[in-house]
Amino acid sequence: MQTATAISGGVTAARGYQAAGVEAGIKSPKLDLALLVSDRVATVAGVFTTNRIQGATVTLCRSRVAGGQARAVVVNSGCANACTGPQGALDAERMAQLTGEGLGVPASQVLVCSTGTIGVPLPMDKIAKGIAAAVPVLATDGGALAARAIMTTDTVDKQVALEFPLAGRTVRVGGMAKGAGMIEPHMATLLVFLTTDAAVSGEALQGCLRRAVDCSFNRITVDGDQSCNDTVLLLANGAAGTPVLDEAHPEWPRFVEAVETVCRDLALRVVRDGEGATKFVTVEVRGAVTDAEADLAARAVARSLLVKTSWFGGDPNWGRVIDAVGYSGAQVQEALVDISYDGLMAFRGGRPELTQRLRELEAVLRKPEFTLVVDLHLGTGRAVMYTCDCSEAYVRINAEYMT
Amino acid sequence: MQTATAISGGVTAARGYQAAGVEAGIKSPKLDLALLVSDRVATVAGVFTTNRIQGATVTLCRSRVAGGQARAVVVNSGCANACTGPQGALDAERMAQLTGEGLGVPASQVLVCSTGTIGVPLPMDKIAKGIAAAVPVLATDGGALAARAIMTTDTVDKQVALEFPLAGRTVRVGGMAKGAGMIEPHMATLLVFLTTDAAVSGEALQGCLRRAVDCSFNRITVDGDQSCNDTVLLLANGAAGTPVLDEAHPEWPRFVEAVETVCRDLALRVVRDGEGATKFVTVEVRGAVTDAEADLAARAVARSLLVKTSWFGGDPNWGRVIDAVGYSGAQVQEALVDISYDGLMAFRGGRPELTQRLRELEAVLRKPEFTLVVDLHLGTGRAVMYTCDCSEAYVRINAEYMT
Repeated sequence: MQTATAISGGVTAARGYQAAGVEAGIKSPKLDLALLVSDRVATVAGVFTTNRIQGATVTLCRSRVAGGQARAVVVNSGCANACTGPQGALDAERMAQLTGEGLGVPASQVLVCSTGTIGVPLPMDKIAKGIAAAVPVLATDGGALAARAIMTTDTVDKQVALEFPLAGRTVRVGGMAKGAGMIEPHMATLLVFLTTDAAVSGEALQGCLRRAVDCSFNRITVDGDQSCNDTVLLLANGAAGTPVLDEAHPEWPRFVEAVETVCRDLALRVVRDGEGATKFVTVEVRGAVTDAEADLAARAVARSLLVKTSWFGGDPNWGRVIDAVGYSGAQVQEALVDISYDGLMAFRGGRPELTQRLRELEAVLRKPEFTLVVDLHLGTGRAVMYTCDCSEAYVRINAEYMT
Repeated sequence: MQTATAISGGVTAARGYQAAGVEAGIKSPKLDLALLVSDRVATVAGVFTTNRIQGATVTLCRSRVAGGQARAVVVNSGCANACTGPQGALDAERMAQLTGEGLGVPASQVLVCSTGTIGVPLPMDKIAKGIAAAVPVLATDGGALAARAIMTTDTVDKQVALEFPLAGRTVRVGGMAKGAGMIEPHMATLLVFLTTDAAVSGEALQGCLRRAVDCSFNRITVDGDQSCNDTVLLLANGAAGTPVLDEAHPEWPRFVEAVETVCRDLALRVVRDGEGATKFVTVEVRGAVTDAEADLAARAVARSLLVKTSWFGGDPNWGRVIDAVGYSGAQVQEALVDISYDGLMAFRGGRPELTQRLRELEAVLRKPEFTLVVDLHLGTGRAVMYTCDCSEAYVRINAEYMT
């Protein structure tokens, strides 16, 4: 989008939002509780995990997002409040209630998210103290602290914000995300919080978010494991003074594009911070019979443990790539396939070009980022996945991250 | 099977078979070429990879197995002869021809298998020398050398043989397998060679092998990657003097059971030797709506990188287990689910029992073998998968195993 400018501030870049990040003591001494508040009722859209096991907070958010309006989001890290039975549901509800009381807003307008270990009850005394500590320190530049408070195995916080003209006003879209492991496409992935000061109709906002998630968070994979707490929320509070926007507004595409840009940027930050990752890889499949088949092939390559470990080893191992395409379910004819790394052909028309080019290819594989293109030459189907390598550190992190 | 006795000898345990394993120099100084020969024409059955990319030898074997008869199998390790274009097909054909000439049998009765790196042409001079070296050293106790010659990243050779009475004769079934990585269910997995001295009709033999593969090699996973050279072959040469057996014979179930036992034993050896594996885990899902849904759930758990790394870390992390069940596609109701390790409940009726039992559960997780049972309490569907943990060594092995 040519007219959008990147700005600082994350979720508090948009006007009318305050945020805080505090130490509630759940994983002391670290920031572990975030609060995001709109100074007026905001329209809200949400996309949630498709996992059949869902955290208590997902159930709560899902029903409140259906209501279409929200004032605040409270988030804790260090405990996912998932698989915690009826107590988990009560705890999530209580978390909303405490936040509503602290802010003086109805609990029904408070959304709740939790992330961390599955199966451990929320330490409600700490949650209560954290909420009490967060309310008085809410600030219009609190986005950065909030972004840090939602991290688990993330090594960096993930924030982005854009500003652009719309309907005669200056509109801002901001966001923050957390996530580094248990990252798998085909659903809203991880925790993502987006804000805008545009005014947007509920239906249009939900449609816009769904599309943005499809082309961002649903295009990434770290380890192929799909979380049961994945949640993406988008609040639109109208503080920029725009009219209520929807698909009928002539500048609607500009809003959609801004949300998509923010989502894509955050999604790529998640992959770059993938647990143990040393390389960021774009996997593009072209020439499939359909887009759906291209998607199957790109996902199979991006998920293959053998492919990911070969990237870690700096090995232009296109054999493992074509093997994954072969079992992906996509139609493929070996004699037509091209495979290239950053434009350098390794396999052309079903024949290796590797021996002539091994050194050049190895140089590409040593880069921290590269693009792998598989052209099946069967049709016009195309799909892209963003992913990372798999290192010994990934195994170490997940062998040591105990229940 | 009560009446079967384990015996030594692998593929040469059955009468009328000779084998050899020699150093052809493909990955010198290691055994890398195996030859298995029946002293008379044998009925042959085969099950092959379902990967749409298939090695040249798979194509060749598939068409010859359709003919129903074979005398010999020649196998090299160190080079998969896959994705090698038209030259690969010519090389596979030439390998059969050279073997046929050496043995004095028609090339059309020689089956060919290759395993190793994808995309590298076969070094035909070395293959030719290897075949020439193998023919004169064929021996009725050559099974052990052949089993070693087909290994790639395997750390141990995998052989088994049984003897049992059938149709008034003593019948033997022997087998060998290779495979440690790129192991994924839903197809004939890896390379497996089985022999029997029973006489069996072609159709009955194929049906028997298909069923045996379904309950053995198709029940294992190491890393979720499906090879493009997977092949299981079963030769039946009748040297035991039985009549030609088929489903109509009253003792047919005894033969089927022996083949299944040999296949299951070899499959479990593959998992135990999984690349970098430190633990062998049986994953059983019960109480699913259907067997197919139980299979989805068991596979998702057995494949999950997060679950496998938690096993490596000795962590009874049932949260990752139920998360995988949740995204598997199987129907699940959290409040009904039980999860146990070697019979010790970690999660019962949707509630954690972990805190009371953490020490006992951790003791189970430290064992080199344990059984994880997930009971969904929704129906009678049931499935079992055999798998291993994922260690840093897996990543190291596959980062270093270069093209």
